[in-house]
Amino acid sequence: MKPHIIIDNLQYNNWSPKIFEQLVKGQVSAVHATIAYHEDFQETILNIIQWNRFFQTHHDKILRGSSHHDVIKAQKSKKCAIFFGFQNPSPIEDHIGLVEVWHQLGVRFMQLSYNNQSLLATGCYEQNDPGITRMGKEVIREMNRVGMVVDMSHSAEKSTLHAIEISSRPIVISHANPAQWHEARRNKSNTVLKALAESNGMIGFSLYPHHLKNQSQCSLESFCSMIAQTAEIMGVHSIGLGSDLCQDQPNSVVEWMRNGTWTRTLDFGEGSPDNPGFPDMPSWFQDNRDFLNIHKGLRDVGFSEQDVNLIMGENWLRFYEQSFSPQNQNNL
Amino acid sequence: MKPHIIIDNLQYNNWSPKIFEQLVKGQVSAVHATIAYHEDFQETILNIIQWNRFFQTHHDKILRGSSHHDVIKAQKSKKCAIFFGFQNPSPIEDHIGLVEVWHQLGVRFMQLSYNNQSLLATGCYEQNDPGITRMGKEVIREMNRVGMVVDMSHSAEKSTLHAIEISSRPIVISHANPAQWHEARRNKSNTVLKALAESNGMIGFSLYPHHLKNQSQCSLESFCSMIAQTAEIMGVHSIGLGSDLCQDQPNSVVEWMRNGTWTRTLDFGEGSPDNPGFPDMPSWFQDNRDFLNIHKGLRDVGFSEQDVNLIMGENWLRFYEQSFSPQNQNNL
Repeated sequence: MKPHIIIDNLQYNNWSPKIFEQLVKGQVSAVHATIAYHEDFQETILNIIQWNRFFQTHHDKILRGSSHHDVIKAQKSKKCAIFFGFQNPSPIEDHIGLVEVWHQLGVRFMQLSYNNQSLLATGCYEQNDPGITRMGKEVIREMNRVGMVVDMSHSAEKSTLHAIEISSRPIVISHANPAQWHEARRNKSNTVLKALAESNGMIGFSLYPHHLKNQSQCSLESFCSMIAQTAEIMGVHSIGLGSDLCQDQPNSVVEWMRNGTWTRTLDFGEGSPDNPGFPDMPSWFQDNRDFLNIHKGLRDVGFSEQDVNLIMGENWLRFYEQSFSPQNQNNL
Repeated sequence: MKPHIIIDNLQYNNWSPKIFEQLVKGQVSAVHATIAYHEDFQETILNIIQWNRFFQTHHDKILRGSSHHDVIKAQKSKKCAIFFGFQNPSPIEDHIGLVEVWHQLGVRFMQLSYNNQSLLATGCYEQNDPGITRMGKEVIREMNRVGMVVDMSHSAEKSTLHAIEISSRPIVISHANPAQWHEARRNKSNTVLKALAESNGMIGFSLYPHHLKNQSQCSLESFCSMIAQTAEIMGVHSIGLGSDLCQDQPNSVVEWMRNGTWTRTLDFGEGSPDNPGFPDMPSWFQDNRDFLNIHKGLRDVGFSEQDVNLIMGENWLRFYEQSFSPQNQNNL
């Protein structure tokens, strides 16, 4: 047996022909790819140009993802649809009009903050969390209007609950796990998970070792049992995958992800001075060819074939269908 | 009788609810609107944001034009489809990758030069015209690939002939008239008109008084007779309208169009020290409600109803259908 459709709702690889080939071999029909961490508007345009080049050069393996139709198109043609997202609102700088411009350029997810306070919301590494800012409320409304999904993966708890409340459309935590399973600043409380599910939002389970119990040694069974426990809390329709795969990235990239341009002292984020680099991925999830392991793991902890299909991709497909179009076509 | 469809392939108005209302009243189904003269990339993004706001606020009168389907959609819903164009390649700065980014944002026409030498081609006010530059050849190829039309309205003759030769897809002179009728630096030789027609390109006849015989006093009959003479040279399938309407613009705008940021001394372009501002439009073409005058004028000089329909909009509609999609969908 294999899943009906595989969608991974977060990757940040050092993209290459090798990885595009692995997406095809792994039958991954869609990936939400981060295209900005700390980049400003113009720097992110350069990333778009690089992706345009990828789409042109590797058109036999990948295609631009704009709507859920592209996922189906990709699946039928044995390709992978790439959907863009930001882990930080830096590409909109301080201009709300840039939300729609980015949507026009294919961006479908934006985190309101990345670890730190942003103009919009508080990050999960801040000491105090005042909630969504004035501009944040306006930007959520604008994202709702144009069809860009609010992502609170790296945000603080109060801001996250606040965003769920303010947003008129379901939001996501694209890549994180329950703190109940593995206590980590980036993992989420049951309060957040419940509020997310009640608002028809979704979580993508992360395979980034700092988010896993026993880190790189986390067993497939432990990971899949965690998913089963989360399904008890959130229901089986609110969960999917968001692997946070950062394949082939040099350690300079994780340093940049953590430090961007905001500090002159080294911040280790989820790492530490004696463990500063990218951690090793679990043996059972090394790259995009390993989703079948998770499929089997989910069956082994007792999920029905139907529920496994939901988790492996059908939930995200439904979510994409509901989320990427403008809210009211007549007002656009 | 009225035309089947009206398309004006160049306007640069001081856009307002009043003008959008006139487009609807005049039953203009599509306009190619200039959104950049000398703006760089980021400045042009601000113009896109302003247009996004227009599309949102005035959705009952205008809609975003991306393909010829939008013209039909606009006509059926009694709206006007707005297609974007640049009169200068300044918004791509020196980065060929920005051609595709602008196409994604809806830009469908780009002049390779505006009066002066650009990185791509020579303008019609330069003394010497070496033809299309190295980068110009690459950018034409890229425009051909993504579906952005080369516009040589303000370019010099040798560069124009060179562009026609290099481009693998038909190009346009969106707004100009034959020099044979009215000698002006911006009007075009029969050599250019013939080469344009032989390559399936199109010209849009300008109503900007500096391009008209007797300027603001030009008669409707003289204008329509000129169209009849041009049809003899180019054939009736290569001609349409490109009014160059600059409605409600203050004179500071024509000064900026001519001087941009490239000179510290005042350049009067087609004007002169004692006539520096926008000239008055002909009495029979004041705004978008006056296209029916031209329709009647064309009938009066002997065009068949069928040919008038071609000139008023059907030729542009066919050209749009052939020009705005990527050249080879499989390679994108």
